[in-house]
Amino acid sequence: MTIGIGIVGAGIMGADHARILHQGIAGAVLAGIHDADRPRAARLAADTRGTRIFETAAEMIGDPAIGAVLIASPDETHAPLALACIAAGKPVLCEKPLAATLEACRDILASEIAGGRRLVQVGYMRRFDPGYRAMRQSVAEGRLGAPLMMHCVHRNAVAPHYITSDLVIANAMVHEFDVARFVLGEDFAAASVSSPRASGNAPARQPQFAVLETSSGVVVDIEAFLDCQYGYDVRAELVCENGSIALAPNPPVAIRQDGRDGFALAPDWRGRFVDAYREQMQAWVASAASGRPAAGSSAWDGYVASATAAACLEARRTGAKVRIDVGARPDFYA
Amino acid sequence: MTIGIGIVGAGIMGADHARILHQGIAGAVLAGIHDADRPRAARLAADTRGTRIFETAAEMIGDPAIGAVLIASPDETHAPLALACIAAGKPVLCEKPLAATLEACRDILASEIAGGRRLVQVGYMRRFDPGYRAMRQSVAEGRLGAPLMMHCVHRNAVAPHYITSDLVIANAMVHEFDVARFVLGEDFAAASVSSPRASGNAPARQPQFAVLETSSGVVVDIEAFLDCQYGYDVRAELVCENGSIALAPNPPVAIRQDGRDGFALAPDWRGRFVDAYREQMQAWVASAASGRPAAGSSAWDGYVASATAAACLEARRTGAKVRIDVGARPDFYA
Amino acid sequence: MTIGIGIVGAGIMGADHARILHQGIAGAVLAGIHDADRPRAARLAADTRGTRIFETAAEMIGDPAIGAVLIASPDETHAPLALACIAAGKPVLCEKPLAATLEACRDILASEIAGGRRLVQVGYMRRFDPGYRAMRQSVAEGRLGAPLMMHCVHRNAVAPHYITSDLVIANAMVHEFDVARFVLGEDFAAASVSSPRASGNAPARQPQFAVLETSSGVVVDIEAFLDCQYGYDVRAELVCENGSIALAPNPPVAIRQDGRDGFALAPDWRGRFVDAYREQMQAWVASAASGRPAAGSSAWDGYVASATAAACLEARRTGAKVRIDVGARPDFYA
Amino acid sequence: MTIGIGIVGAGIMGADHARILHQGIAGAVLAGIHDADRPRAARLAADTRGTRIFETAAEMIGDPAIGAVLIASPDETHAPLALACIAAGKPVLCEKPLAATLEACRDILASEIAGGRRLVQVGYMRRFDPGYRAMRQSVAEGRLGAPLMMHCVHRNAVAPHYITSDLVIANAMVHEFDVARFVLGEDFAAASVSSPRASGNAPARQPQFAVLETSSGVVVDIEAFLDCQYGYDVRAELVCENGSIALAPNPPVAIRQDGRDGFALAPDWRGRFVDAYREQMQAWVASAASGRPAAGSSAWDGYVASATAAACLEARRTGAKVRIDVGARPDFYA
Repeated sequence: MTIGIGIVGAGIMGADHARILHQGIAGAVLAGIHDADRPRAARLAADTRGTRIFETAAEMIGDPAIGAVLIASPDETHAPLALACIAAGKPVLCEKPLAATLEACRDILASEIAGGRRLVQVGYMRRFDPGYRAMRQSVAEGRLGAPLMMHCVHRNAVAPHYITSDLVIANAMVHEFDVARFVLGEDFAAASVSSPRASGNAPARQPQFAVLETSSGVVVDIEAFLDCQYGYDVRAELVCENGSIALAPNPPVAIRQDGRDGFALAPDWRGRFVDAYREQMQAWVASAASGRPAAGSSAWDGYVASATAAACLEARRTGAKVRIDVGARPDFYA
Repeated sequence: MTIGIGIVGAGIMGADHARILHQGIAGAVLAGIHDADRPRAARLAADTRGTRIFETAAEMIGDPAIGAVLIASPDETHAPLALACIAAGKPVLCEKPLAATLEACRDILASEIAGGRRLVQVGYMRRFDPGYRAMRQSVAEGRLGAPLMMHCVHRNAVAPHYITSDLVIANAMVHEFDVARFVLGEDFAAASVSSPRASGNAPARQPQFAVLETSSGVVVDIEAFLDCQYGYDVRAELVCENGSIALAPNPPVAIRQDGRDGFALAPDWRGRFVDAYREQMQAWVASAASGRPAAGSSAWDGYVASATAAACLEARRTGAKVRIDVGARPDFYA
Repeated sequence: MTIGIGIVGAGIMGADHARILHQGIAGAVLAGIHDADRPRAARLAADTRGTRIFETAAEMIGDPAIGAVLIASPDETHAPLALACIAAGKPVLCEKPLAATLEACRDILASEIAGGRRLVQVGYMRRFDPGYRAMRQSVAEGRLGAPLMMHCVHRNAVAPHYITSDLVIANAMVHEFDVARFVLGEDFAAASVSSPRASGNAPARQPQFAVLETSSGVVVDIEAFLDCQYGYDVRAELVCENGSIALAPNPPVAIRQDGRDGFALAPDWRGRFVDAYREQMQAWVASAASGRPAAGSSAWDGYVASATAAACLEARRTGAKVRIDVGARPDFYA
Repeated sequence: MTIGIGIVGAGIMGADHARILHQGIAGAVLAGIHDADRPRAARLAADTRGTRIFETAAEMIGDPAIGAVLIASPDETHAPLALACIAAGKPVLCEKPLAATLEACRDILASEIAGGRRLVQVGYMRRFDPGYRAMRQSVAEGRLGAPLMMHCVHRNAVAPHYITSDLVIANAMVHEFDVARFVLGEDFAAASVSSPRASGNAPARQPQFAVLETSSGVVVDIEAFLDCQYGYDVRAELVCENGSIALAPNPPVAIRQDGRDGFALAPDWRGRFVDAYREQMQAWVASAASGRPAAGSSAWDGYVASATAAACLEARRTGAKVRIDVGARPDFYA
């Protein structure tokens, strides 16, 4: 049985998901594309051997050939599209963030719970990265003792001009919130934020440095710097009672040339997390086929990541430490 | 369109291929298993949700539900099975070596050429490893200048008792012959072999150290040591006129514990080449679906690897440098 | 001309300095030892081929055979000993901290300025580590653009029982304050401190995590964790506008054994900074011989490091961000 | 007591030794310089604060202010100078090779033995490198089991035009012969040599690749490539029964810039072995002061390295495997 996947949004992320489907995901076929920018949809359709174009997202969501929907359109469309999919009873893989506001996140939770079936997975793909999985596993197995601290770094070579200092938190750091919760298995209780001086390469946008505390007292610090120039660079180290575990660089080759020994960094997240994106898609397709909840971030996880970002934005605005309280997780998401 | 794959041989390699198919290869489904040891076939069938068991390989090869055949049975069965598949017009992925003797290799070449269609891929999976591919690409693009030397290391933690010093060459080093040809794009012209003292852990089996020269004068040295105890370890460095490129270690995480900083090595080839095996399978399935020749090692490549191994065995026996001449590659394999 | 060095304090640090002198520092000879614990002094004298033992520090400082004094006695003795050396006009290498209180630091500054000659070097040996020097040089040369952030880690395997959470800052983190100023070339303006949960291996002592801002807006975060169990581990990364520079691990050998590839970490600071200690001593002896100010941390630098530690202790106590103002540097220390 | 050192030869090596003495070696002072090129001697004298210039080497060797002699003049002068020093009873540190011919080596051995005192150390400085020392220690302690293979790489960025393919062996590979004997603690019994194609950057000079066997059956392979363009690069891995130990790269800092993560390689041997040269000098001075035999390579070791090179040159010329027999080591060198 093969599931037809419909993609909303033919931009960078949508095109990359289409490419992943096209290169081979068992049990799935790219069956539809919709983009408000029709020529863009047409280009992606052509690149993928004539995938069918839908004129509206609603039409695609409702089409019987579409068994599951991937949302890669602008943030403010995430919530209405996800709600439409829930109404149609179709599994959704929604690019992060889950929604543009916390209220919209809560609407999705309510709708999903009312429907009685978990249909939403949020595209926090790092949960499928072998490095983070190994870190989580080491926590679960207790081999290094209890976690005490976690250091996270998130750097992009360059960011689009519309990314403000606030969006550094809401757009980039949000990945760290989700994956730190995934690794540690607990929620954040407090956050404070420092804003280092801006780089001359992007004078209107400051790097952001957050320090969070989990409910058990683990301190997690996160650097998000979207103008580092040299490449895409994500790092994490978990410091435990008896040892430390960190993401390792994973270049296929090392090169000695021009007086230097080293290796190439991926230019952006697609190269760095190529395996994670594929695994995420395969796992989502498998869960869509089986009807079981997805293995990745649930709607609840997506809501908590956004709520944590909101707290960090407040900490940045006020300069003070901000308490974080997301409430109790509904049993539905256990 | 989904191709049904039949696997001959339910041992370590066959089971691993079945697992890969089971975890998701687009366009393919595991459709049959045959093993001379029926209970072993039954166990693998059970592990893969009731795959159909065939009583004979011939029956499976002839079955219309089987569109392509994966040969993972003992070496001496490779040739008759490959010939049967060629006769049936079905694509084959044959575990290395192509055949147990050079004569049997030549039979397969002749049969494939006579049939007029390239149906055989040999399972030298390293051609799908991102590291070797990057090395090959750097040669093709000339970024580091012409290759001059290549250093290769192949170590297993422990080897089965039946692996003799000769089999260290025929069974393990043969991977290096194939992948060095893949990276360098040329054939070997001469070989000499040294046999270091045996390890006390395996007194009846010596490591082997070969020095080969390609037709253009590149010197390739290969260590094969199957009793290194500490893990599976494959390395390669290509030394060119203006720089050097080497396989990089690719652990997902680094761990600091007990006075040491480091990372875990894969216990065997399945962990180290997990991506290469999957990519090989996906590429083979895609070629089987399209009818185009496979992207991996052809029957000709399989023959040349075996012929190079034969020359090294002679060099080991005589202690002298041995000329290698595999003849001109038939246009059929261009 | 050879300078006779007198060492006050024959404990771990004093003995290590004696060993360094003994192994060969040009222009210097170990000429005297004093320790309040006379048998301990006697043991060290015996280990260094019969170095003369002085009954009191004052006697040693006043002896004409002693040209310069190394202070490695308990913290509260640093100030009186340094003042005595200044009074005697003899160069001093004083183990960190410069003094036990900020007031005592200021007394030393006043006394040195009144004497008109810079005689005091504080033993922040990291300023002689090739890694930190390369980082400082890259800032000075501007090759990576302006610094924006600096991440520092300071871990010991185990700490003595008397080290409290406060002393983690005053005793360990103080190294980071000095060397970050050295690398960045500017002072700190503010600090806040988080205290992660304590390790079960040392339940009475928490790791400390400080976030400091320099006057130009660089954010410097520092982890100090003195119970990491696995070894001594000091790291630093300087993130600049166009790239990042970090201390590299520098083991002499890498070992593959027991399923792992890695290297040994130094058990404590003496192994990690063995070269820095030797270079520090050689530079101090050279400055003592030439009469020029020492190349390492001055009394002013020692005062600023202690003042920064005091601010962090207040930040830890209050939970709030604390402003740091050390006043203008006297021209005497330019 | 301070020993006056006289240096013969003010070229690259002589000047570097002078700099090391100048930066501080306990117990020694640079007391004299001689070079056949008098202006060159004058420049070095000026660079080292007016060291005395001697018009002839003989005069310097005979001068009472000169307690020990460092020979850094052209290869063919090594033997006569060493013999003069032995006749004068003065300790010698002689740059490698010990002499230009095996006969001259044997003259030095005979003269030293006749004199009854070991006065000659050969400047194979790698014996003082922490990496090789750790490898030797691991063999001595047996922690990894018995050695089976050793892989060595020796690369220079560029070589002077007068270095022929033969000199790649005699001049560069000779370091590997000495240090492999040091690590393994045994002599070579046989050698064969391959000559890869030449680089277009140095068409008249081929890299050399030697495979040697020790008396106990360890296989040692050595690449020497003096035109690798990218930097000075020396590597060694010792493969033992239960694990492998290798020289680790030891850069002080790692840099991420321009899409790459990596570190700078030393441009030549002086940067790579800066510590080894200093330790060698300090150990030599200490042995000269104490009258004990030097800790580094003896005249016997120098002879054996040259004899091994001679065997490799014959292997290269004949294309065959050559037996190596240096005879029994005289008890004098035990």
